[in-house]
This record gives sequence, structure tokens and C-alpha cells, in this order.
Amino acid sequence: LILSNTLLAAADPLPSWNEGPTKQAITAFVNRTTNQSSPDFIPQEHRIATFDNDGTLWPSHPMYTQLAFAIERIKAMAPQHPEWKTKQPFKAVLENDMDTLASSGEEGVAQLVMASHAGMSTAEFEAIVTEWFKTAQHPHFKKRYTQLAYQPMIELLKYLRHNGFKTYIVSGGGIEFMRPMTQAVYGIPPEQVIGSSIEIKYELQQGKPVLMRQAKIDFISDKAGKPVAINRFIGKRPVVAIGNSDGDRQMLEWTDAGSKSSLKMLVLHDDAKREYAYGPAEGLPDTKVGAFSESLYKTAKKRNWIVISMKRDWKRIFSFDSAEQL
Amino acid sequence: LILSNTLLAAADPLPSWNEGPTKQAITAFVNRTTNQSSPDFIPQEHRIATFDNDGTLWPSHPMYTQLAFAIERIKAMAPQHPEWKTKQPFKAVLENDMDTLASSGEEGVAQLVMASHAGMSTAEFEAIVTEWFKTAQHPHFKKRYTQLAYQPMIELLKYLRHNGFKTYIVSGGGIEFMRPMTQAVYGIPPEQVIGSSIEIKYELQQGKPVLMRQAKIDFISDKAGKPVAINRFIGKRPVVAIGNSDGDRQMLEWTDAGSKSSLKMLVLHDDAKREYAYGPAEGLPDTKVGAFSESLYKTAKKRNWIVISMKRDWKRIFSFDSAEQL
Ligand SMILES: [Ca+2]
Ligand SMILES: [Ca+2]
Repeated sequence: LILSNTLLAAADPLPSWNEGPTKQAITAFVNRTTNQSSPDFIPQEHRIATFDNDGTLWPSHPMYTQLAFAIERIKAMAPQHPEWKTKQPFKAVLENDMDTLASSGEEGVAQLVMASHAGMSTAEFEAIVTEWFKTAQHPHFKKRYTQLAYQPMIELLKYLRHNGFKTYIVSGGGIEFMRPMTQAVYGIPPEQVIGSSIEIKYELQQGKPVLMRQAKIDFISDKAGKPVAINRFIGKRPVVAIGNSDGDRQMLEWTDAGSKSSLKMLVLHDDAKREYAYGPAEGLPDTKVGAFSESLYKTAKKRNWIVISMKRDWKRIFSFDSAEQL
Repeated sequence: LILSNTLLAAADPLPSWNEGPTKQAITAFVNRTTNQSSPDFIPQEHRIATFDNDGTLWPSHPMYTQLAFAIERIKAMAPQHPEWKTKQPFKAVLENDMDTLASSGEEGVAQLVMASHAGMSTAEFEAIVTEWFKTAQHPHFKKRYTQLAYQPMIELLKYLRHNGFKTYIVSGGGIEFMRPMTQAVYGIPPEQVIGSSIEIKYELQQGKPVLMRQAKIDFISDKAGKPVAINRFIGKRPVVAIGNSDGDRQMLEWTDAGSKSSLKMLVLHDDAKREYAYGPAEGLPDTKVGAFSESLYKTAKKRNWIVISMKRDWKRIFSFDSAEQL
């Protein structure tokens, strides 16, 4: 019996997914789109799969990982900026006053991002981010952020790639914040990472070319920006699109409107015990960070977009989850 | 002897290149960067090769292919725009008055591009471009534009890919003007085509999502814009960069400044008989379309960037060139 279980487990490409309609829908989609005799067959060059990152491939609570990075950078840079002691939203950051920071809104966050993400070369920024990911810890899970990739999603990415799908990240997060870690964490190379960007300027410094990061937004890859970015970077319409919030609605709509068979999924965070629970869909607590609205939930149900219940569909969430949970 | 020549030819991945220092430099570079025991070995994920398009992979004279497209579109659309009969630069286009058109400068060209490239969905534009490439003819060679890809470059692209290099186009031309033909002509898929872009807006039209092309420049992928675009789309520095004009200087500089062994090449159009001759480098006639300046030529010599002489280095230029030239 033990041997046969081991063999079964070896044959299952999605061992961290519970048996049920969600897992069945995934494998059925892959089987019918990769079988040449199926009417839903998709030639390999059109097997484009786009994944949101925050809240879809790893946690986005209690705050976006990139905001945690910005806050820690501001604190590290504070000695060189005495004026921040009295200037919002920097003062709030330095005093760990999250309520005041939250009330500074998008404008406040933008100021933090510009102060912490611009004014250096792309190479310098890459080094800073790489170093940060080596040590920074998630405040709740007490693990490095790169250890928090959802195990079922890592399996799904591999399973899709094994079946000829090209896997992309299409995130509202910063493209150069993600690229230093996506290959190691998700098996996704830099050229398949799409995200928001700030303006970059090419300069010669003492005859040496550098790309300098400017304190100016170039593009926000969120909501309607996601299909626009997908079109710009890939030039093909996805046949798999997976997200977790209202920011992914347009990416799924765009995928859904294609002529080919497609798989649309949304992760619902309904597992307060193992991760977080928020919606406000399905009566879950509301949130300001990556909300899954009732309206999006209704659209999903109406259009047969699959809602992934973390609680019901995922046997384990993190690679470090104990074997007893399996 | 005939048999042995055939066998030799079969073994040569670059049969349209004459033997000599240019061809030798290419094969030596590929050999030393793909040999694991070489100090210049480059892991496959870093084998990024970026090619300019106009004047590098196909002709850019007597005018850019995309300008020929814009002019033909303006003529086709003229019946719906009676006001163009008296409005420059449209009047010049309709009267084939190329001098007046040239004197309208970049501003004039931008007006033509906006009138002919915007105001429709990306799907509609793709259909228009695809249809145009099926029939439009180059005025001098009397061939379809897609038949004019330089045969030595097609061989070089294949040779690089065969050796694990990922080949990209990085052009000043419009990204969505190129994508409909790059796979068939160069073996380069849409997601490896980088170029200039206009703004795109996501809209729902009667509930159906469309990406609408706006009459507004988003990004110009030329000169300093090329390394910026390479960084944004690929997130890796190329190790092969090939261009033909001053618009490619920064792409080659950026490639040259990397820590890995790299190959930088510039195509010099010095073959008035088989294609065109222009510089003004090397005393060739000056041009307003893709100039190769004396200053760029000096930089190339100083930095050991290879100057490809179309006349000396290419056994044939087009796939239809007669066998006698071989
Ligand atoms: Ca998200
Ligand atoms: Ca060119």
C-alpha cells in the first residue's frame, strides 16, 4: 500500500491540490488543449499562461511585499535624510505609525516608492533587492518572502510548462523588484516577468553606460493596464490567466474573449487558519490590499471562471507545511 | 569533388557568408561562448542576441518599409478624407510629391503614422498589416517586402538559435507593424519583437474587450531608447548586438559594457550593385534614412565592433539572388 501510494504520488503532477472539481478542471483543460486530436487543441506557440503575483503566487497580506521593502529601505536610508523625521509619509514610516501611513493613500505610497526605488542605476537596484530578499522576513510567517510561494502554484506552473505552456508573471508590482527572484522561486526567467515600471534613462557616466532609475512612473500594470501590458510584451492573447483580485478582472476578460479554449482562475483567500481570509466576496472580511469583490465573484460564477478556495482546494499552502496536513 | 563540395556546404551553417575575418569572428565567438571549458563560456539563459530590423535584416531604402505602408494606407483612406487634398503632409502623399513630404520632417511623418496606424483595434491593425505584406512590392526590387530579408542574416539568426541564443528584434519601427511577419520571415516570435509603440487603451465595446490604438506615441525604441527597451522587455544584457546605423550606437555600447564576452556588428551598405551604397562613413554617399556616420565607424574600429561589408562579406544578399553569384 505504501509503495502504491508513492507511485500514485509520483504520477500526480499536482500533489498539493485536493481532488475535486478545481483540480479536475485544470487537468481536463491541459489534456484537451494539448491533445492534437481534440477540437480544443492549442498549438504550442499559443500556449501562453499569465499569472498575477501578489496574492496569487505568494501572500499579499498584511501588506504587499514591495511596500515592506520600501518601508525597510526608507528606514535604512533615514540617517542620510534627517528631514524625514518631520516630513510625512516618511515620519509615519520611521515611527511605525501604520494608520497615518495608510491615510496618506496612494500619493503617500508613491512618495515612498520613488524615494526608495529611484535615483540609482538598474544594476544597483538589482543588488539592493537581491540582498533584501536574502534576509527580509515575513512578519507573520517568520520566513523569508521567497519561501512563501504557494506550493500548489509552483506545481501548477511546472505542470503547465511541462505541457508546453509558456508561463508569465503579469503583476501590478515593479518589474525590477520581481525579476531578481522569479527564476529561483517560480522558474520564470526575467524576460517572462511583466509589471509596473518607472522611467529609465540611459546615461554615460565617465564613459560607462548606465540605466538610471528616474522618480517618475512609466506604466502601471494593473486593471486595464494588464491586457495592455500583455499585448505590448507578448503580442499574443493568453489562454490561461490566473489572479486573485479586482485588479485581474480585465486580464481574465481579455483571455476569456479569445477564440481558443481558455482557463481563467481566481484565488479566494478563505483560509484564516493557514494563511489569511479576506474578500469581501462570500462574506469574508473586507480589505484594502487586493480585494476580491462580490461583483468579481458574481462575474466569475456567471462566466465559469474557476474560484480557487485556498481552504478546500489546497492540501497544503507552503512547502514547509507539515506532512500531517497532507 | 562535387560531392565533397556539397558535403562541405551542408556542414557550413553560414553558406551565404564569404570566407574571411567577419565570418571567422562570428563562428569563433559562438564556439568560445558555447564551449563549457572555455573561459568565455556563456550559460544558455544569458545568450541574448538583439538585432535591429530596418537596414540590418532587410532593406531600409529608398524609404523605411513602414513609411511605404503609411503612404499606401493614406492613399487607400483618402476617399474618406476629402480634406487631405489640401492639407499637408497628406496632399504631398496623394500627389507623390516626395520632396514636399521630406521637407515636412519628423512632424509630417508622425502625422502620417498617426492617421494610418491609430483609431482602430490591435486586431484590425494586425489584419491590415498582414494583408498589406501579402501584396505590397518593393519599388526597386519588385518583390514582396517579406522576400527581401537578407539571406546571410537569416542564416546567422538560425545559427545563433541552433547554438542556444535567444534572438530578438530591437527596432525603431512599430512593434505591431513587425509582429505579423517576423515569425515567418525571421523565425522570431511576437514576444521576441521589441519596437516603438503608440498608446493602447483597453475598452469594452458592447461588452466585448478590445485594445484600441491611440494617436499618441508611447515609446520610441531608437538610440538611447534601445537599451531602455531591452532592459524593460528582457531584463538581461545582450551578448550579441547587430545594427546598421547611428540609431544602434547605444545598443552596441550597452552590450559592449557587459561583463561577458560579446559580439557587436554593424552592417555597412557598400553594395550599390546588389543593394544600396550609403554611409556617409567610408566616403559613401550620405543619406537621411539610416545613416552610418563616420563617427560611428571610428567608434567601431576603436572598440573592435565588426563592420560587415555587404559587398565583401556577403556571397549573396537575397534568397533569390542567382546561383552564379555564389
Ligand atoms: Ca494580486
Ligand atoms: Ca536600422
